[in-house]
Parts: sequence; structure tokens; C-alpha cells
Amino acid sequence: MQQIYLDYNATTPVDPEVFDAMRPFFTEHFGNPSSSYSLGSVCREAIEDARNRIAALLGSQSDEIYFTGGGTESNNIAIKGTLLQAEKQQGHLVTSCFEHPAVSEPARFHSENGGTVSRVGCDTNGMIDADSIKKELKEETRLVSIMHANNEIGTVQPIREISELCRDQEVVFHTDAAQSVGKVRVKVDELGVDLLTLAGHKIYGPKGIGVLYIRHGTEITPPVHGANHERGIRPGTENVPYIVGLGVAAKKCSEHLADSERKLRSFRDQLESILMREIQGLMINGGNAPRLPNTTSIIFPDVNAGNLLKRLPELCVSTGAACHSHTVELSDTLKGIGLTAVQGSGTLRISCGRMTQEKEITTAANLLISAWESTRE
Amino acid sequence: MQQIYLDYNATTPVDPEVFDAMRPFFTEHFGNPSSSYSLGSVCREAIEDARNRIAALLGSQSDEIYFTGGGTESNNIAIKGTLLQAEKQQGHLVTSCFEHPAVSEPARFHSENGGTVSRVGCDTNGMIDADSIKKELKEETRLVSIMHANNEIGTVQPIREISELCRDQEVVFHTDAAQSVGKVRVKVDELGVDLLTLAGHKIYGPKGIGVLYIRHGTEITPPVHGANHERGIRPGTENVPYIVGLGVAAKKCSEHLADSERKLRSFRDQLESILMREIQGLMINGGNAPRLPNTTSIIFPDVNAGNLLKRLPELCVSTGAACHSHTVELSDTLKGIGLTAVQGSGTLRISCGRMTQEKEITTAANLLISAWESTRE
Repeated sequence: MQQIYLDYNATTPVDPEVFDAMRPFFTEHFGNPSSSYSLGSVCREAIEDARNRIAALLGSQSDEIYFTGGGTESNNIAIKGTLLQAEKQQGHLVTSCFEHPAVSEPARFHSENGGTVSRVGCDTNGMIDADSIKKELKEETRLVSIMHANNEIGTVQPIREISELCRDQEVVFHTDAAQSVGKVRVKVDELGVDLLTLAGHKIYGPKGIGVLYIRHGTEITPPVHGANHERGIRPGTENVPYIVGLGVAAKKCSEHLADSERKLRSFRDQLESILMREIQGLMINGGNAPRLPNTTSIIFPDVNAGNLLKRLPELCVSTGAACHSHTVELSDTLKGIGLTAVQGSGTLRISCGRMTQEKEITTAANLLISAWESTRE
Repeated sequence: MQQIYLDYNATTPVDPEVFDAMRPFFTEHFGNPSSSYSLGSVCREAIEDARNRIAALLGSQSDEIYFTGGGTESNNIAIKGTLLQAEKQQGHLVTSCFEHPAVSEPARFHSENGGTVSRVGCDTNGMIDADSIKKELKEETRLVSIMHANNEIGTVQPIREISELCRDQEVVFHTDAAQSVGKVRVKVDELGVDLLTLAGHKIYGPKGIGVLYIRHGTEITPPVHGANHERGIRPGTENVPYIVGLGVAAKKCSEHLADSERKLRSFRDQLESILMREIQGLMINGGNAPRLPNTTSIIFPDVNAGNLLKRLPELCVSTGAACHSHTVELSDTLKGIGLTAVQGSGTLRISCGRMTQEKEITTAANLLISAWESTRE
């Protein structure tokens, strides 16, 4: 059975060019980058090339780019590395109600260990109001962490507005951009962020590699300790093949962003309009807000989305946030925008990507319509 | 110029079988293991197969195996995860004078944050005496962390004796086995350890993946927070290709251990005997202690080892511990066994491995002898 993969927000396949770039670093250029002989220096140079490519994608300096073991680790280093600066973790953190667990769980840990955390809500469109953050900023606020684009409904937050507030108050600002990089323009100076998280496997790079951007002058106390790799921010022998691969993935994102954005938006809009036309009462979460071009979160009326998918084994899409599923509880995001339990359990996230074909969009739409209709019988 | 790679303790190439096993998980079986559709379940199953293979290598239960982002992270989780159990990090840690920075740096962090640390020394052969650890055990001791085999001189520590002491006192015992796994027999029950670190890139797996073995009943407070991957011990989307690769690497270690040990020991002994015969005053660090079969640490008399290597660009070996070089200071290990600065700077670590050919050993020996002699002129 031919699968239709429309879950690019959960993960992406490794781009063939990325794979080809990584390949020689497994068995041929396999040296330890710390070694002084040429097998080591080849790897050191490859790492710096990749760092330059990430910097070019984000519009940063190369030495503001740090390679990590993934988006979760980047978020942990950003949050703990800033809050550890405060005496006995007493610092105040402002974050939102619908962050990924890689942000909300470090926040919970902080609040359970002497720190304080304020969580601002979003409106029914899935947007955070910068003013609601302004109200939470206090003398002891050390960090604001707000995701760039929501992973489930795709709403793009007013990062620039928030960063201006933070800069006025001299508060460090972190954004988890795991879902936005490669889908929309993400430039650290335009956003005005001090810390930014990127995850390799969301941009056609491999799983298990990420980046933390750290603006010059932003102090980070590394929470993991070892030798001096990545200038002490992330110790551990460098994952050379994945770093090289991520560099190529970033380069491809830089080169193809405008085209990709246009194509994905047209696919997404086409999918939504077919479904809207055929299914009475269908609703789009965040539909009135600025959204990622590839993402739609759809409430199918009067149906359990899990049951709908059981009829469609060929369709790869998500009911909750796929990164951490196996739970039936309404996600923080769907709760945050005020869905009822019935609406939430009728919600599917559909996200297209680089390998998506127009035919897959129309097939998926027709499959969903038939399945929905069959549940009505 | 044909390179002679004799630095397998720094890192190993990825075994071709490991690479072949990983390959389909980059572009074909690329799903997020948390996803409910078949692209996800294929990955979940592959992860559990790999876990079983690691467990078979270490003689543990499968659910005692946790995948991490590398040896450094495994050590951090083991050490911080145990010491975080104590009130305000007040717990006492016993470790040695010559651990890898991935252990000694978390220990330093602990001592700078309200905890106490005792560092036991080694003898001139590079061996730790279990009695010296017994003397340090106190009421408030929470953890003992002693490496299985030293990365620079290869001495294998009396882990069983130490684990018996720890068990008597109900103290958790961790060993960093990054250098021993795959080179000598490492079975968690025979060693009697509660926590054990394995690093993928030392056993012909890739860089950026590791394992932490956690014995049933050993409580760990995870220091990194996110979604519930690896049962909450190491959150972050699973690095499926590397996990699969590490499973195959472990399987190959299990199958070939006895043969490999015999071959490597004969190569190493041959190298040492040629050099001893030709170079008056040459000394072997740890030569009288039980050692890894593949490792030799040699003091070349009256010469700077770095200068010796400058004459031998085809030879890939280490002066210090290659994992964290670019420093000229004597390593903790060479200091620990009591070398003078002159002896230390004359020391080379030579470590052979799976791809080593007998001819490379004799060629390397002759190159070293000629280079040493030419420095005498």
C-alpha cells in the first residue's frame, strides 16, 4: 500500500543530498575532530563549513552557532543555561501555555526548584499577544521563551514585538524555531532574539542533531559538563556526519525557501478548500491567524479523528502532536485555543513538505471526505 | 600518502555493516517513532531490536538500556541523575584522579554547587586500589564513579572489588566503560555495577550516540527535560538510524570479542617488543598492570612526542588523550601515574583496532624507530 506522508511537522525524511554529504564521514573521513593529524583536521574544517551554512540561513555570525544533540537539548541549554545564572534558580521565566514539552518541561522543573514561571495564554486563533507578556515582565525576570511557530496549528507568533519588549527590559529572549526554520524566513536580527533553537530532523536533516543560536554577549552556563567541544556549551565528541548533513540541509533551505513556501501554501490551501467545500461544519484551527504555509489543523465535525484514521491506514497524519503522542488527552495547544473535548478529538494536523506531490493532496482530501462520510452512515 | 590509523581509542570508523543497517532509516524508514502509523511503528520496532542487542552485549535486561546522545551525556545523566536525588546536591561523590572530563567535569560542577567530591589516586602502574575507595566511603556518599579502563594507558580497574564495597554500603556505583566495551568482556552482573556508560563511536558505531545502563531499582532524576522519550531519562526524538547502527555494532562486538581480543593483543605486544628491542630506555606506562589488549602508552626517551609525530604525518596516533587535545599540559592520567614533565611529553598512545593489519604494526614500529633515531642526530 502506497503511503501518503503528510506529517512533515512530526519529522522529515533526510534529503538525498544531505545523505550523500554525510556518507563519507562515516567510514572514510572518520577521524576525531580533536585529533591533530589530517583525519581530524578534515573533520574540523567540515564542521566549520557547516557552521557557516547554518549562520547564513539564520543571518547570524558563525561563532554564534552551537551544534547540539537535537531541539530538546537546545531548548534545555537555552533555558537552564540562562536561569542557572540567577542565584539558586530564583529567576523568573515567562513562557506560553502551548510550548513544546522541550520548553514546558524545563519550565516545570524550574518552578519545582525554587524558580517562578508565568505562562501567558493565547487567543482562540492561537496567537499570543505581546501585551500579555509585557504585563508579566518583572524586576527578577531573566528569560522569556516563546515558540516561533506552533507545532500543531502552525500559528506564527509576534516574535519581533516580543523581542522589542525584552530588549527594553534587558531580559534574554529565546524562541523555539524548530517548526519555522525552513518553512518561513527566520533571521535572528529581524526577529531580535538572543537564543534560537533549530532541530535537524524538521528541515530534512537527521534526527539527533540540533543547533542553538546564542547571540554575542548572551551569557549561558552550560548545564552539561565534559571536554571543551562546542566551546564548552555542548561537550561530547562532535557528530561529524550529522553536522555536515545539517549544513547541507540549511543550504538547501536557504536556496529554496521562497519557492517552497509558495508551493506548500498552495497545496495547503487547496486541501483546505476541498475539505471545506465537501464537509459541512469543518473548521480550521488558527485559520484567521498568520500561519506556517505547510500546516493545517482541522476539526472534523462529530467524529473521533483517531477512528477516522483507522479507516485510512495509507494516510500518515497526526491526531495530537506526533512528537509525543500515545496519549489521548487534549494537547496544550488545543486546550489553549479553547477547543471542547469533542472538537479536540475531532482534530487532525496535516502538514506537507518538500516531497509532497499535488496528487497526494487531492487523494488525501478525497480519502478524508469518504472516510468522514462513511462514519456518518 | 597512505595513512596508518592507530588511534582507535580516540574514535573508530563506522563498520560497513553498521552503515548498511543505518542507511534505510535516513530516507526510507524515516518516520517519527512516536507516530501511530506504520512508518512510526517500523522505527519503534527497530529501536527495540537494537536495545535487545545492547542488552545481550552487556548481559542486562533490555529495559535497563537507555539511548543517549553519547558517552558524555550518559556520564552526565548517571552522575547528576544520582546526585540530584540528594537534598540540594549535598551528596558525596567518590571518583578517581584520572577520569575522562565527561566524569571529572560533572564532578567539579557538583563540588562547586554544594556537593563534596573525593578523588582517589592511582599507583604508578595506573591502578586504583579498592581499599583507597573504601576509606572514602561515608554516611553521605551517594555515588562512586570509577572508569572501567583508562583511555590513555588502558589499565583495567578492579571494578568487581569496588562494586562489592559499594553494595555493602548501599552506595550507587557507576563505571564509564566507553573504552572497555568491545575490547574486553563487559557484563554488568559480573562487574556488579548499577550504572554503566557506553559510547557508540568507540565500538565502530557512529559519533553522537551512547547508552546508559541503569540497573533495575537504581533511581535516576533526569537532568534534561522534555517529552517522554527513553522513558523520560533522555527526551528528544529518537535518533533511529544511529540506534539501529549501534545495535549492529553491539552484535558484532558480541560475536567477535574473543578473536578480536587475541588479535589486538598480539599486534600490541608485537609493536611493544619491536620498539623495546630497538630503543634503549623506552618505557611502557601501565605495563605491569592488567590492560586493554589494544592499547599501549609509550615513553620515548629524551624526545618530545609532538616533534616525533611532525616527522611522521602518515601516522595517526595521540600524544595526549585525543578526545580533548589542543593543550600541552600533562594529562591527569600521566600526572596520576607520576610521570615527570619530560616523560609525559615523550609519551605516545598507540591503539589498534578492527581494521588494523599486521603490516601496519611493523611499518609503524619502523617509522617510529627511524624518527626517534633521527631526533638523536
